[in-house]
Amino acid sequence: MQALVLIAHGSRRQASNQEVMDLASRLQQSASDSYPLIEPGFLELASPSIPEAIESCIQSGATSVVVVPYFLAAGRHVVEDIPQIVKPVAEQHPQVTIRISEHIGMSDSMTRLILDSASSHSSAVDPY
Amino acid sequence: MQALVLIAHGSRRQASNQEVMDLASRLQQSASDSYPLIEPGFLELASPSIPEAIESCIQSGATSVVVVPYFLAAGRHVVEDIPQIVKPVAEQHPQVTIRISEHIGMSDSMTRLILDSASSHSSAVDPY
Repeated sequence: MQALVLIAHGSRRQASNQEVMDLASRLQQSASDSYPLIEPGFLELASPSIPEAIESCIQSGATSVVVVPYFLAAGRHVVEDIPQIVKPVAEQHPQVTIRISEHIGMSDSMTRLILDSASSHSSAVDPY
Repeated sequence: MQALVLIAHGSRRQASNQEVMDLASRLQQSASDSYPLIEPGFLELASPSIPEAIESCIQSGATSVVVVPYFLAAGRHVVEDIPQIVKPVAEQHPQVTIRISEHIGMSDSMTRLILDSASSHSSAVDPY
């Protein structure tokens, strides 16, 4: 059974963390055929942590987990922190295939998404 | 003439800023019919600044500018800082229509993009 863990940075603003949890819920609605288990996980400042999210999927029967960094840029968090956090979890569960996907900023679909946003409902800046 | 300014946070890592500039270039290739002018702009730590990017579009003949926040969450930067920075530029150019779109994290297309990333080339985490 395949699981997807959506990893965000985490924020002191609970509303930001809630946005990520809502996104994980929307993913679950649209992709439950491919990924019966979808969990959010936070690098810092919010729960569940990345290990907690992966462990939760494994406890629920995941045999394969893809970790998707919900990050725009390949900064230290993407390049170093996330792999370092995921590795010991993989060590504890050698029977489970754990992969880290590209961060979302690398997606070929990003240009299309930006153009969708540009034509979205938006606020005119009132100069007066 | 319509212009699009893609606003990113800006980073001390030049590679991160370059990712944004490359993305703006890819946008220009795919959307030059809708937006003959596309510029990146940075909130901090990199150039051009947001006012510089908008001014550049106006000097090049833009009559309408849509500012797209390349941010995942509606944090303080999106809710307060970007509108505060854009407003005086709009005041200086009342003949130009300046709009701020939703930040990209709000896009309905985000779930699709995350699933694309999940199935992208990715690295297995070697447990040993």
